[in-house]
Amino acid sequence: MKRALSIVQPRGKPKIVIVGAGFGGLAVVRGLLDVDAEITLIDKQNHHVFQPLLYQVATAALSPADIAAPIRTIVKARKQMHVLLDEVTGINREARTVFLASGASVAYDLLILATGARHSYFGNDHWAEHAPGIKTIDDATRVRRTILLALEQAETNRQENVESRDELLTFVVIGGGPTGVEMAGAIAELTRHATSMEFRYITPKCVRIKLIEGGDRLLTTFPEDLSAAAKTSLEMLGVEVILGGRVNAIDAVSVIVGEERIPAATIIWAAGVQASPAAAWLDAEADRAGRLVVKSDLTVPSHPEIFVIGDTAAVVDANNKSVPGIAPAAKQQGAYVAKAIRSRLNGKSGIAPFRYRDFGTLATIGRKRAVVDFGWTRLKGFPAWVIWSTAHLYFLVGFRNRFVVGANWLWNYLTFERGARLITGLDRGADMPTAAEDCVTERAA
Amino acid sequence: MKRALSIVQPRGKPKIVIVGAGFGGLAVVRGLLDVDAEITLIDKQNHHVFQPLLYQVATAALSPADIAAPIRTIVKARKQMHVLLDEVTGINREARTVFLASGASVAYDLLILATGARHSYFGNDHWAEHAPGIKTIDDATRVRRTILLALEQAETNRQENVESRDELLTFVVIGGGPTGVEMAGAIAELTRHATSMEFRYITPKCVRIKLIEGGDRLLTTFPEDLSAAAKTSLEMLGVEVILGGRVNAIDAVSVIVGEERIPAATIIWAAGVQASPAAAWLDAEADRAGRLVVKSDLTVPSHPEIFVIGDTAAVVDANNKSVPGIAPAAKQQGAYVAKAIRSRLNGKSGIAPFRYRDFGTLATIGRKRAVVDFGWTRLKGFPAWVIWSTAHLYFLVGFRNRFVVGANWLWNYLTFERGARLITGLDRGADMPTAAEDCVTERAA
Repeated sequence: MKRALSIVQPRGKPKIVIVGAGFGGLAVVRGLLDVDAEITLIDKQNHHVFQPLLYQVATAALSPADIAAPIRTIVKARKQMHVLLDEVTGINREARTVFLASGASVAYDLLILATGARHSYFGNDHWAEHAPGIKTIDDATRVRRTILLALEQAETNRQENVESRDELLTFVVIGGGPTGVEMAGAIAELTRHATSMEFRYITPKCVRIKLIEGGDRLLTTFPEDLSAAAKTSLEMLGVEVILGGRVNAIDAVSVIVGEERIPAATIIWAAGVQASPAAAWLDAEADRAGRLVVKSDLTVPSHPEIFVIGDTAAVVDANNKSVPGIAPAAKQQGAYVAKAIRSRLNGKSGIAPFRYRDFGTLATIGRKRAVVDFGWTRLKGFPAWVIWSTAHLYFLVGFRNRFVVGANWLWNYLTFERGARLITGLDRGADMPTAAEDCVTERAA
Repeated sequence: MKRALSIVQPRGKPKIVIVGAGFGGLAVVRGLLDVDAEITLIDKQNHHVFQPLLYQVATAALSPADIAAPIRTIVKARKQMHVLLDEVTGINREARTVFLASGASVAYDLLILATGARHSYFGNDHWAEHAPGIKTIDDATRVRRTILLALEQAETNRQENVESRDELLTFVVIGGGPTGVEMAGAIAELTRHATSMEFRYITPKCVRIKLIEGGDRLLTTFPEDLSAAAKTSLEMLGVEVILGGRVNAIDAVSVIVGEERIPAATIIWAAGVQASPAAAWLDAEADRAGRLVVKSDLTVPSHPEIFVIGDTAAVVDANNKSVPGIAPAAKQQGAYVAKAIRSRLNGKSGIAPFRYRDFGTLATIGRKRAVVDFGWTRLKGFPAWVIWSTAHLYFLVGFRNRFVVGANWLWNYLTFERGARLITGLDRGADMPTAAEDCVTERAA
């Protein structure tokens, strides 16, 4: 069963292989819908994830299925299409062949690598175990379990071991970019509401949320006034923002920031990313973050048949600017590659270099605040939140998801309830603290 | 941290401890909402599950959060309430104390055991690994992963190893009760739609679904004409119904029924249940299925302070009939126990024995057929399906879930799409067959 076989590909038609069904990879497929070619789309998961909303799954505001859709469903409009649930293990540039974990191999005439990024712990990979990041649905449900379980255990472990309860009720988010800011705000709202309404022995006052940023302000890619607005909004939600904080160590129950030890049962990593190993597969030049250095037409130097897009690529575009690693950039690159391929298949020469169009950047802080930078204007507070919600709903894949997420948001907004607050995959062997004698935080019955 | 401490319970108030937040346990809480007593509700999970719809999570029609709600949210209306995420390890009847896995203990004046049932493999516990049953959200997402992964692997493993592909595309459901019938019908619809629309190398003709029942008809608790209707409906969906089939062995890749070996990558158990170990905790008399034998007032003989309800109890009611192990019975028993407790706390003597009111039983077969037995009348086909849908929506806990599930069903009904078709918790180390040369089932591109 493990013989290395090649995937069937009809002869005579150009073979296009796309690795990765994120924003970039799907944009390529969308741009090639009616092209007469054999397209193979390979992904490690069977679903596309709307990554900008993963933090809402991690904080129980949305369910996994609200922000993920099966890849096959998304691309079913195209007939000459082969979807493979598999993982790339290597690429032979000379033989133009992609090797897969299952043992299969796929030949290509044109190859698009859109394999995204994972978290980077800056050489401290052992931190990953204690401070998970959120890049996949499984990451998000794992973090959700950690947060909800900490609240449950704090409720049971009241008073006897106050140090331990404080540890359970301290949530640390490392990294003050959009993901960290959104995560800290969402944890603040989840814990504040849950502890004020549904727990008996813990109250919002017992909960501490710390957001640690190494730089001197949050959201460094935004203008300074929006960074300040984000900080104020987070503080109003009860988040302690620590700027210039240097993380020196992380273990199962604490973070050491500078010299200070912060005991915390929940630690979330949002501090850095590292490209997928595409550079290693090609044995090509990568930048410090592991991104493949590509030309301004998004091809690998001396390999015009290999395109690299999204978080996997380091590109300086036609404006002589580095393209940021965000969803809109990946989508634009995907559309550009599709256009370039159509042009080539029609026998035309190359198209103009890629030019990134910046339509603005957004970050949200909790239930009714956000910051938006359009370049020509800036918004904060509730109007920014309305724009953020509309934009995210609009870009969600598929009508059903838009509809369900919209209904969920409205419901959460009106009721503060968290419909997805399930602890799943519970390891019953996990150590669970015990209950005890008396509690200063117990409210009047 | 592991010192055995007792949970704080205010003095002077009756201490009521409820173990299990299923239909029975929650019905007790609901009936005691305004009673002046200290209630402790203990469950292994943080959420209540609407078990009758678990098979829809396993077949990707609904998301986990659609049919589960956090216990704290459900009972938040009550103030003198303590919810514990913990597991019972033993009970001391003399000291009236419940011991928990966390090391804590809880004293009671009145104890209600509503701990439900698990699957029974009739002494073949090693079958559990290969033929999981569906009792929890985690069970359901595990089965969902198995089914969806089998389809993905069959698509990649086309042609080279036909025996293996047949094995991947054979789905066996063991047990012809309502769960087995519903599961087989739902798998038929999921696979038929997915393979006809979104896979390229497998078609509905490649898929085989076998429902194995040991008796001589399906749904043995229903009238014979409804059993026949269910069998016909399933066969129209492409399910092969095997009656009088005796399962002799199960391993990772096959089931042996009688003398015949059926190769199958997906095997689902719906054949029998066994009560939770409540009888062992109390060292009291149990029937063959492990259910505690209780009196017609639902108390344990010579222990009027211990009630047992739902799937954990073996009861002969005031009509001299055995009470069935279904959700409506558990709810009625919960309401009865609440009434009995109110009566006792008011100093009155015992109430009349429990009497089960049978409002009818239902089972659904796929997207538009069901069977309903009201006793005074019977329905089948589409009208029965409408009644089934309405009843299940009505009984779902909480408005939000009703709304979301209703929208989802309507969407699935209109589009055949499965929004929750996500493979999560994917173990990348799993053996995944490889692709190969040619495929008789490949459709014209």
